[in-house]
Amino acid sequence: SADPRIVKDAFTIDALSYAEAGELAYFGAKVLHPRTMRPLLAHSIPLHIKSSFNPGAAGTVITPEGKPSGGRVKAITSVHGVAVVMIEGTGMAGVPGVSARAFSALAGDGINVLMISQASSEQSICIVVMAARAEAAVHSLIGAFDVELTRQDISRIYSIRDCAILSAVGDRMRHKPGLAGRMFSALGRCNVNVLAIAQGASESNISTVIEEADLRPALTTLHAAFARSQRRAHLFVFGAGGVASALLQLLARQQAWLQAEQQIDLSLVGVANSRSMIWNEEGIDPQRAVDGLKKSSESSSATSILERLLSSKLDRLIVVDATASPEVSGMYGALLGRGIAVVTANKKASSASQVEFDALREAQREGRVPYLSETTVGAALPVLVTIRDLVDSGDQIIRIRAILSGTLSFVFNEVSDGRAFSQALMDAMSRGFTEPDPREDLRGADVRRKLVILAREMGLRIEPDEVVLEPILDDSLHDGDIDSFLARIPGIDAAWSERARQAGEEGFRIQYVGEIGPDGARASIEHVDRSSPLGSLAGTDNLFEFETRRHEGNPLIVRGPGAGPETTAGGVFADIMVAARTIN
Amino acid sequence: SADPRIVKDAFTIDALSYAEAGELAYFGAKVLHPRTMRPLLAHSIPLHIKSSFNPGAAGTVITPEGKPSGGRVKAITSVHGVAVVMIEGTGMAGVPGVSARAFSALAGDGINVLMISQASSEQSICIVVMAARAEAAVHSLIGAFDVELTRQDISRIYSIRDCAILSAVGDRMRHKPGLAGRMFSALGRCNVNVLAIAQGASESNISTVIEEADLRPALTTLHAAFARSQRRAHLFVFGAGGVASALLQLLARQQAWLQAEQQIDLSLVGVANSRSMIWNEEGIDPQRAVDGLKKSSESSSATSILERLLSSKLDRLIVVDATASPEVSGMYGALLGRGIAVVTANKKASSASQVEFDALREAQREGRVPYLSETTVGAALPVLVTIRDLVDSGDQIIRIRAILSGTLSFVFNEVSDGRAFSQALMDAMSRGFTEPDPREDLRGADVRRKLVILAREMGLRIEPDEVVLEPILDDSLHDGDIDSFLARIPGIDAAWSERARQAGEEGFRIQYVGEIGPDGARASIEHVDRSSPLGSLAGTDNLFEFETRRHEGNPLIVRGPGAGPETTAGGVFADIMVAARTIN
Repeated sequence: SADPRIVKDAFTIDALSYAEAGELAYFGAKVLHPRTMRPLLAHSIPLHIKSSFNPGAAGTVITPEGKPSGGRVKAITSVHGVAVVMIEGTGMAGVPGVSARAFSALAGDGINVLMISQASSEQSICIVVMAARAEAAVHSLIGAFDVELTRQDISRIYSIRDCAILSAVGDRMRHKPGLAGRMFSALGRCNVNVLAIAQGASESNISTVIEEADLRPALTTLHAAFARSQRRAHLFVFGAGGVASALLQLLARQQAWLQAEQQIDLSLVGVANSRSMIWNEEGIDPQRAVDGLKKSSESSSATSILERLLSSKLDRLIVVDATASPEVSGMYGALLGRGIAVVTANKKASSASQVEFDALREAQREGRVPYLSETTVGAALPVLVTIRDLVDSGDQIIRIRAILSGTLSFVFNEVSDGRAFSQALMDAMSRGFTEPDPREDLRGADVRRKLVILAREMGLRIEPDEVVLEPILDDSLHDGDIDSFLARIPGIDAAWSERARQAGEEGFRIQYVGEIGPDGARASIEHVDRSSPLGSLAGTDNLFEFETRRHEGNPLIVRGPGAGPETTAGGVFADIMVAARTIN
Repeated sequence: SADPRIVKDAFTIDALSYAEAGELAYFGAKVLHPRTMRPLLAHSIPLHIKSSFNPGAAGTVITPEGKPSGGRVKAITSVHGVAVVMIEGTGMAGVPGVSARAFSALAGDGINVLMISQASSEQSICIVVMAARAEAAVHSLIGAFDVELTRQDISRIYSIRDCAILSAVGDRMRHKPGLAGRMFSALGRCNVNVLAIAQGASESNISTVIEEADLRPALTTLHAAFARSQRRAHLFVFGAGGVASALLQLLARQQAWLQAEQQIDLSLVGVANSRSMIWNEEGIDPQRAVDGLKKSSESSSATSILERLLSSKLDRLIVVDATASPEVSGMYGALLGRGIAVVTANKKASSASQVEFDALREAQREGRVPYLSETTVGAALPVLVTIRDLVDSGDQIIRIRAILSGTLSFVFNEVSDGRAFSQALMDAMSRGFTEPDPREDLRGADVRRKLVILAREMGLRIEPDEVVLEPILDDSLHDGDIDSFLARIPGIDAAWSERARQAGEEGFRIQYVGEIGPDGARASIEHVDRSSPLGSLAGTDNLFEFETRRHEGNPLIVRGPGAGPETTAGGVFADIMVAARTIN
């Protein structure tokens, strides 16, 4: 199905038609000269081809009809060591005989032409010959068009070396609209420049000339897409913390299922943390990636990683950001603009200034690839997708009310249940729910970022400092180091307990509620009715209430686990799958 | 930007480079002979082109560099009335001079060649000439290859009439990987067969030969995609009831916004109900569609509509099913298989027998287009997308518990609140929550279908009759006509009221709960804790609890309006947008 020296998973085709075999014979399968088949063809005699190294194997049988493929591509062939010879000029149009003289000159010098392409305006003719004959061909043509070159009817005759021909072969391909589209989309996705294209009278061949350096990625990509019917995608992961580790474990568990059940071949090509990186385009075992990263000596400056990502020729490359690093989020624009998809759990980019966010969206439009960030709000809960669907379908979101922080949700649930504020906070710390310094959570920076992301998904334009946050702690408590903070925090327990008790008597609980509505975006300490959805939360759950014009007074509610490395990794993986399925 | 006689929204390009203008000059813009520009080119003199009919307009300025487009396509040109001449045979490979002799013969007879394409195997050469010269060209070539034809080195020389050349023109296109892919994908999406392709030395032209009959759809599609940067999609709607009407109203409201803000040009091309249909590929005003349908005399047999849909050459055609008709759902396989996307609120297909559902999925894989049915369960609530994301990300769904029927939810909420069963049912009827015969709802057929759809989205294989339903009414009540039923129904009020009272005393409410878990799929009358999410529902809300391996004991919950024509239409519209964005 392809040259096994280049494509690892090339396989033997069981049946071919004469026409298909003829196309293939020209390339890889050198056992078969095109004329060999002519007498067979005349009498419809089947031809069996076996491997001399493995005569017991089934081999390939060639018959008049082959095995009808419904217009599918059966094999991808390649010829390397070719050159493109270009004849360019504005004086050729409408002059009969330019092609005739060109080909006569080449034939006169015994130069074989592999492929011809002349687009309709006749401003240029493109001829493909073996590289060894390129110089002779240019010389021959310059001789033939001496006069036209002097008169500038022809402006230039030159050759491009180090090229390769790549052809998709299959019966009746012309009757399957879209095959050419899939072929050239795949080459475009892996950044392969197409120098020339020809699909001629034959129904069973589309040929294209590319740079020889691109042959391996192009051949591998087309072989997977057509011969193996696999959707290939490549993953690069930034991060080596909890989310990244959980994601790599998940990938290790899911790879085989994806390939068998979903025809998606998802390959990990690289992982980087702030110190080092590993990179292997042939694929990395996800379970060994974290270890590999620890042992790796390859340095990982952001610039060098970005350069490697941008210059790679990998089909459907998806970069995953499982860090909180502004250096990584700073790369998104460049990646998206170059057609590399970004899946992120990092809130930095989506909650940056409006002008930075606009630039990101613009880069995404330019690159025509997904930017997916569902896990930046409510982890794996379907929050951003719900907003997008409501906006798309012309509903107007009047108000979103939400418990956006698992940490604050936990603390206030505990306080509402009668625990001391400091005890609840210490418990959250020891369970790993908080930042190393829990004042980070209490300051509300995380809630602010999430509200900005929600508002932008609603289509609003907003700067982060427009979000109004009610402070949870007195300013004085934010001074000093963490130990002194922890020593002083029991001092506020009594006030919180009293507040919780009073609220409880009236049937309320305390929550830190984020809201986006007609009055803008804000978050504040609220007393919520115990029998309301917001008042019935437990643990670290998040909750989102969407009140819309279509359903005033009857909100759509999404509730569930909104944090944790495994949950977040699950959400990131779901985003990766959306990207793998939609990049085209 | 294209021939204004064919493309309605063609526009004047403000600036072109010499090279681009040279390409264009060859076609539409007959004001400009390619050689006109040569002296200008030598001295970099700008050329201004104005319209004689509108000399005040800005017109086009042609300069050496033009207006850098970053490798974008600026115009789509077309030449009609051409023919493709094919030379086919297995004896041409590796023989120098075949092309030379072919073009010499044509030049000798004064036949101008517009385009040449010879794919790499040399089994065929494709030459494009004006249709008027096709016969002469074949004759000329048969003369030249007399010997080869006798020896069968060349098997056939013939022409294909009624063809057209379509070219995309823009500077430095070769340096923009993926343009060819987008061009041929677009042609593939609208079912245009590509007879020949050539992209030659020139960086600014990709040419393709198609059947002349396909010129209008192909030109319109490429012009929208490239020159106008619009993502075009076409909508055909089955149905004229509440959901369809709400959907058409929504479309009328959203069309302008989609075009301006999302670059999506969503055009309604047809509407059909069980009696008649309207069809207009130029677009139908959604607000007048329902009226148009009433007045239309065009008959609408399912077969004739299907035929029209399958033979249309519309880019990104999306068929929407807002009926409950098995005749419409029976078309999905044929539509999907031919690359036509299906968005449905009709549960029939997704809840048919497993073998029928498998065939649907197979057709979808074949056609590579979306089949979207989010509204078949929980209307616009994000239910199926949540299941898909959980399954994709390797989580295991242990159990789904759900209130799946807005009608039953309403009735049991009322009964739990102390109303008589018959009163609650009559109220539901008068508010339009039920089927015309409310026993349809009470029989649970709708709940059964939804459970099958949920189970299949989880990846389970299930037949509809494997769902175990606890009956709500005694068999005897299902006998007789609706009036006799309504007369007898108060007879069961006392038993239900007593049951609700007892449950209420223990802190429970009555609900009809659907469940899919380790024991299969079933629905039963349950007493649910008043403080649990299931026990806190109101009105006709639906609720879905997803308990997964990753979050055992802490389910993800989605709750909200699960029925109503506006809600459902909103969900259908969101699915349409997903389709419009992802079809490639």
